[in-house]
Amino acid sequence: MNLLLLKSEDITSPGKAEIYQGDRRFKHLASILKAKTGEEFRIGLLNDKVGSARILAVSESKFSLEFELGEEAPQPLPVKLVMALPRPKVVLRALQTATTLGVKEITLLNAYRVEKAFWSCEQLKASSIEKALLLGLEQARDTKMPSVKLEKLFKPFVEDRLQSLSEQTNRILAHPSVDAKRIGELSGSQTIVIGPEGGFIPYEVEMIQKQGFKTVSLGPRILKSETAMISLLSRVSIS
Amino acid sequence: MNLLLLKSEDITSPGKAEIYQGDRRFKHLASILKAKTGEEFRIGLLNDKVGSARILAVSESKFSLEFELGEEAPQPLPVKLVMALPRPKVVLRALQTATTLGVKEITLLNAYRVEKAFWSCEQLKASSIEKALLLGLEQARDTKMPSVKLEKLFKPFVEDRLQSLSEQTNRILAHPSVDAKRIGELSGSQTIVIGPEGGFIPYEVEMIQKQGFKTVSLGPRILKSETAMISLLSRVSIS
Repeated sequence: MNLLLLKSEDITSPGKAEIYQGDRRFKHLASILKAKTGEEFRIGLLNDKVGSARILAVSESKFSLEFELGEEAPQPLPVKLVMALPRPKVVLRALQTATTLGVKEITLLNAYRVEKAFWSCEQLKASSIEKALLLGLEQARDTKMPSVKLEKLFKPFVEDRLQSLSEQTNRILAHPSVDAKRIGELSGSQTIVIGPEGGFIPYEVEMIQKQGFKTVSLGPRILKSETAMISLLSRVSIS
Repeated sequence: MNLLLLKSEDITSPGKAEIYQGDRRFKHLASILKAKTGEEFRIGLLNDKVGSARILAVSESKFSLEFELGEEAPQPLPVKLVMALPRPKVVLRALQTATTLGVKEITLLNAYRVEKAFWSCEQLKASSIEKALLLGLEQARDTKMPSVKLEKLFKPFVEDRLQSLSEQTNRILAHPSVDAKRIGELSGSQTIVIGPEGGFIPYEVEMIQKQGFKTVSLGPRILKSETAMISLLSRVSIS
């Protein structure tokens, strides 16, 4: 945690906040930072600015703090990410990492090679996703919550919504292929589509290409989708 | 597994090999691929070429195959990676991913913010490391085994060996810092040094800089060391 994220409901009066026992952040302050009265640390207010806080009082049930907001949160990455739903073991880590890298719009998409059971996993509960996003923000010292949409039907999403979602962006489909262009730096707004382990099937590739997406390759090595995601997001320069 | 890696000891006569029960690859062929007589799949011979194999016979205790080697394995990434030892939960995944991305020389280094206990974890057993490297190769359809060195003493490694290890390469230290240059594409041979979670301490940064390493930043967002590693390795272009 490189920054503690406050929510508006933590604020008790202007510039004052309380974190109660049972909260993930209470545990972090108490057990990891072992924070004491008078200590200062970085905070951010969810969907607002970042700044610093000082502990006013510590008890067994709460931390009382005063805080000040100053700087803006880091700039978002101008990327809309559309990713075939990764397997349960990976999905929350992938969401957390995409958030750390600054993505603000994430769509998890069904595909032929996504196992049906993945859609009913524990990890896709709203509370699990929210926690992963908060951890990602805290890692990057960011405050702006990304949106995550679940699209369980490939065809209607690609045919009816992908076009408008990706409007005015560079449309990129990452897909290992012999004749795909090897990708370099990406500048400006992007919509990046990443397939499942094993890749999109040809029918899916065609449908995405029909929406104006250009197939790019990450080279001859086949990467896991999480690695491919980080690799692609790292090539996007904030202009 | 995008390729099955054979070792020379699997070869029974020229172009013939056997994979026995109890072997990780036996399980993969039997349970995941459910491979049957006559089926073909991609193989590679460890530290040699890649090609294809066909199953000649299946029994409860072994798979017999014939194989042919043809193409070269993909080009290595011209990077020597020096990474502060990640925590046990992460280290094998980081080694596997670095291998998938084509790194052939990896050093895991001690640093002030690496917990001592990490050095005696299960994950650093030679057999665990070897398995992670093999999985990384199979993912990338590569055959060339990387070397992994453990350097438990920071100072003698940096003072006595880092200079010669990084000879004739571009020397890069990834370190979040206000005045560091934001990094773009990296071309040619690189030695890339990545700190622990929490970063190198100023004394360590100075010592590494004294060996000719240029500090670069990955932007205002603080990344986990594994994400930073993928992000940096993705910027290296094979010329």
